[in-house]
Amino acid sequence: MKKILSIIVCLCFLSSLWAQENISIGTRQKMYSPILKENREYWVYLPPSYNALGLSKTSYPVIYLLDGAENFQSVAAIQQWLSKGPYTHIPEMIIVGIVNTDRTRDLTPTQSSIQRNGKTLFANSGKGDNFIAFLKDELIPEVSRNYRTQDYRILIGHSFGGLMAIQILLKHTELFNAYVALDPSLWWDNKRLHNEAADILTRKDFRGRSLYLAQASDEAAMSKDTALSVHWATIKNFSANVLPQSAKAGLLYQSEYYEQEDHGSIPIPATYDALRFIFKGITLPVKNLPDNPALITQHYHAVSSRIGFQLIPSEQLLNDIARYCMSLEKWQSARTILEMNLKNYPGSTSATALLKELQKK
Amino acid sequence: MKKILSIIVCLCFLSSLWAQENISIGTRQKMYSPILKENREYWVYLPPSYNALGLSKTSYPVIYLLDGAENFQSVAAIQQWLSKGPYTHIPEMIIVGIVNTDRTRDLTPTQSSIQRNGKTLFANSGKGDNFIAFLKDELIPEVSRNYRTQDYRILIGHSFGGLMAIQILLKHTELFNAYVALDPSLWWDNKRLHNEAADILTRKDFRGRSLYLAQASDEAAMSKDTALSVHWATIKNFSANVLPQSAKAGLLYQSEYYEQEDHGSIPIPATYDALRFIFKGITLPVKNLPDNPALITQHYHAVSSRIGFQLIPSEQLLNDIARYCMSLEKWQSARTILEMNLKNYPGSTSATALLKELQKK
Repeated sequence: MKKILSIIVCLCFLSSLWAQENISIGTRQKMYSPILKENREYWVYLPPSYNALGLSKTSYPVIYLLDGAENFQSVAAIQQWLSKGPYTHIPEMIIVGIVNTDRTRDLTPTQSSIQRNGKTLFANSGKGDNFIAFLKDELIPEVSRNYRTQDYRILIGHSFGGLMAIQILLKHTELFNAYVALDPSLWWDNKRLHNEAADILTRKDFRGRSLYLAQASDEAAMSKDTALSVHWATIKNFSANVLPQSAKAGLLYQSEYYEQEDHGSIPIPATYDALRFIFKGITLPVKNLPDNPALITQHYHAVSSRIGFQLIPSEQLLNDIARYCMSLEKWQSARTILEMNLKNYPGSTSATALLKELQKK
Repeated sequence: MKKILSIIVCLCFLSSLWAQENISIGTRQKMYSPILKENREYWVYLPPSYNALGLSKTSYPVIYLLDGAENFQSVAAIQQWLSKGPYTHIPEMIIVGIVNTDRTRDLTPTQSSIQRNGKTLFANSGKGDNFIAFLKDELIPEVSRNYRTQDYRILIGHSFGGLMAIQILLKHTELFNAYVALDPSLWWDNKRLHNEAADILTRKDFRGRSLYLAQASDEAAMSKDTALSVHWATIKNFSANVLPQSAKAGLLYQSEYYEQEDHGSIPIPATYDALRFIFKGITLPVKNLPDNPALITQHYHAVSSRIGFQLIPSEQLLNDIARYCMSLEKWQSARTILEMNLKNYPGSTSATALLKELQKK
């Protein structure tokens, strides 16, 4: 008995050493989905301030990421980098990477198998509606229960995931605030979604919704692969002729062509650009703030009304800018900024401490 | 005693649970540096194939990353993404992120303090030579001892780190094969390195060395900050007038201006572009290989002679392409590719298994 206990202690100790020296970027979470009738895994990234000592327990927008396991690391890195102060290009956000079990089944809106080289491809496709119900009724509520989330959600999808992102934008518009479709498989099922889109985009209200559409280079031009060339031409037409029809519906969109990127490589540069597009205008002119702290409110007001959601600067960011003003002996500006911070984060101990420091000047 | 033991078991068990559910991208390593007379931490990322079952134990080029803690996550993500097959844009590499203790001391080549707002800045600068000796005589040998490394090394540095990258390129050229300088602080010490560069670049042999220089937008134009405007103008002049003088010295270089990026945001897009620049030509025209497998050798030969270092395609990549040929019933091409793989990785069990599968056809 004693021996077994010793072995357990040793194993656990080794394992805890392993934990200490590992560089972790998130955690694996599991849930059972009654809708999909299976266990699902999702990976969660929390921004550095989430559990930081001395900062208020605030809430965060959430990025939902399709093909979670493949894209989690890069989106977390982009998010971490772009949200760093003082030149923040996006707010700090929680990332939820949805790990696939059967991506063809989940990410395609309709059933459509294809015969190629004597084999049936995509036989198990077309259960996208089930997957959307899982997102809406199970995953999003689960994440909201377990983490401090704001009601601002971004959906990022690549390839079949991009098809799913556009499907949700068109048919379940309210589910997310912003959509990122990376080289989406709009060729699916004889371009069905592409063909339905024009009508929906003129009919429905898309105010407060954003879409970033990224298209990779034309691989078909080199290889003369018919399927690839339909893939390319469909996105091209969607971007050039279908999306512009949403003008009156209020959809905020941008589409970019990435000539240097192929279908596989496009996610990193396009996700980077997409997140910057969504929060365009959020970056503060830091050097001008000591003379004009009112620019902070103006900036955040402008970006909030652009995206239809009230964003406020992070507690850390305003503390840092106040400290910057103090280093230039711009006491009044520092005070204004710290009071703004206390209004945004009532009871903020960090802003209160800095205000006390100010009183000594 | 029993109680204490139980508590230890519990704590260790909890900690091991924590380890299991964490998403890890690398490990923290420690070493004592007799040269710097201090403990140094470095973070290590190993590519997925490093410990993969069924693949040969091969060796890898190494990326050395300055400001390691800040940049590790994003460079690891970019590396992981761009080296994924079948369209690989860079080889799989080990990443070593060097964590700072005193970055001003280590990354500046000369002592140069500055008075600003009544304070002395950079008082402890100018110990760059010590840091270079640490890299050369301690860190690189330590990494080579502990990991399966190839003698192809890339140095990536941002800001002061970019200054250090150019210092090493000019003064210790052989230490790395490729250098990435992200918005480097060439203004340092009255542009001393910038001023020395032209002479060195015409005099020394830079064949087999690459440099990617990235410049951020002109923040000074907005804020009228004199220091910032010297920073910007110095890189601009280095890129436009100094670097071209290396034409006869054989330096392979590219310099890019990132108008949309500021000094803080430039690392992600520029590192992405830099790695693609260094290994330009490595991406295989996958769709054409079933008809012409000789293109693989041609491509790798071209990129190897461009960078002056022999690269070979990864074992996994050739297996995957062979499988692709088999799916199209191009048996002879599959055989040629697998035999190439066996020649590159003698005794490869995965290539041997696939060749056996082929014999049944």
